[in-house]
Amino acid sequence: MSLEKAKQVAAFRAVDEFVKSDCVFGVGSGSTVVYAVQRLAERVELEHLKVVCIPTSFQAKQLILKHNLKLGELDTNPIIDVTIDGADEVDSNMTLIKGGGGCLLQEKIIASCSKALIVIADYTKDSVKLGDRYKKGIPIEVIPMAYVPIKNKVLAMYGGEIKLRSAIAKAGPVVTDNGNFILDWMFTNQDLDWEQVNTSVKMIPGVVEIGLFVKMCSKAYFGQPEGTVVERSA
Amino acid sequence: MSLEKAKQVAAFRAVDEFVKSDCVFGVGSGSTVVYAVQRLAERVELEHLKVVCIPTSFQAKQLILKHNLKLGELDTNPIIDVTIDGADEVDSNMTLIKGGGGCLLQEKIIASCSKALIVIADYTKDSVKLGDRYKKGIPIEVIPMAYVPIKNKVLAMYGGEIKLRSAIAKAGPVVTDNGNFILDWMFTNQDLDWEQVNTSVKMIPGVVEIGLFVKMCSKAYFGQPEGTVVERSA
Repeated sequence: MSLEKAKQVAAFRAVDEFVKSDCVFGVGSGSTVVYAVQRLAERVELEHLKVVCIPTSFQAKQLILKHNLKLGELDTNPIIDVTIDGADEVDSNMTLIKGGGGCLLQEKIIASCSKALIVIADYTKDSVKLGDRYKKGIPIEVIPMAYVPIKNKVLAMYGGEIKLRSAIAKAGPVVTDNGNFILDWMFTNQDLDWEQVNTSVKMIPGVVEIGLFVKMCSKAYFGQPEGTVVERSA
Repeated sequence: MSLEKAKQVAAFRAVDEFVKSDCVFGVGSGSTVVYAVQRLAERVELEHLKVVCIPTSFQAKQLILKHNLKLGELDTNPIIDVTIDGADEVDSNMTLIKGGGGCLLQEKIIASCSKALIVIADYTKDSVKLGDRYKKGIPIEVIPMAYVPIKNKVLAMYGGEIKLRSAIAKAGPVVTDNGNFILDWMFTNQDLDWEQVNTSVKMIPGVVEIGLFVKMCSKAYFGQPEGTVVERSA
């Protein structure tokens, strides 16, 4: 339960710190965000906050609906005040790996439309260098027809190993909420220039998005096993 | 008929120059490519050429099947010897606008996997600066949920005007072969650094591809109304 407690305290802290009335709020994806939406729903009810919630995934949308929060979309709210989202790993420069849950594309779209991106995570996601803690690599969302040449090109540029993510409860590969495949890139060089990697991989035709978030996150809250919260700012 | 004749002579010239036996051939999209596939089919039959054809669109795939050519895909042929494709405009630096037919994503994927990209076009596509001849702007393929913020961001960066491309024979917007929307960006500054535009627009989360092809095309054939062909090399 200490891991769940750690997720909860980080989520509660971020929601209490950043959500105000009359705000447009980006709702991240994953297990830690579940606690954030619970807390948001409590505060909306108790404090009569007016908050429009923009989801980063089908899961996030279901959470918003389940808690009777107001659902919005980028068509009417293209600028988001604050987004609270999880991460698979956060390095000492606040560079993130995201997409273990396969929602990196919508998460990155929403983050890119947000004045602030706040990460909530348990202590196991807090690392110095990417790859220290998270061992599943960096997800790359790709157009299905192009997965083989993209795999070859990323390996030629940066080395490592790449696997097409396999689905469970369906034959063949994972298909994302946007109909694409995911390549999990197990990099071996932990000292790459992640900003350059982000650009060079996204520029490959057929790459829809990469789960590297460089200079996007301004604050991270890491819940600790004993129930305290460690903060890090950009 | 002079425009059709111009398309035909350019297409025939390129196929005669670049297609050899035992080659992997990328098949572009659009009205000029129809003549290229006709010519390829004639040559395959007469000369018993062995050619595997990789399509850039549903239309291209249908053309390949109609002519009983051998259909391939990037999974098994991630490196293409030569791709012959049309363009909406070719400037004096061989920078292309593509995507008037909505197939820019697959076209750019295939081009990026090709040792050579050869453009075939009629004389109306031959220009000095982008925007001299083609007046419909640069197509940007985007994830549907993000079309409003992307539109705002491109306008903030480079100005001009942007329209969500409307469908005909269907209510609402065009949906591409890959399930995305198309924004047509009518730029007003013809002296932009197109390589920089290509990078900065593709880097916006939610942009899947932009119909600017910079330093990708090595040769262009422009058919003339009287039946001759003008060549340009990179």
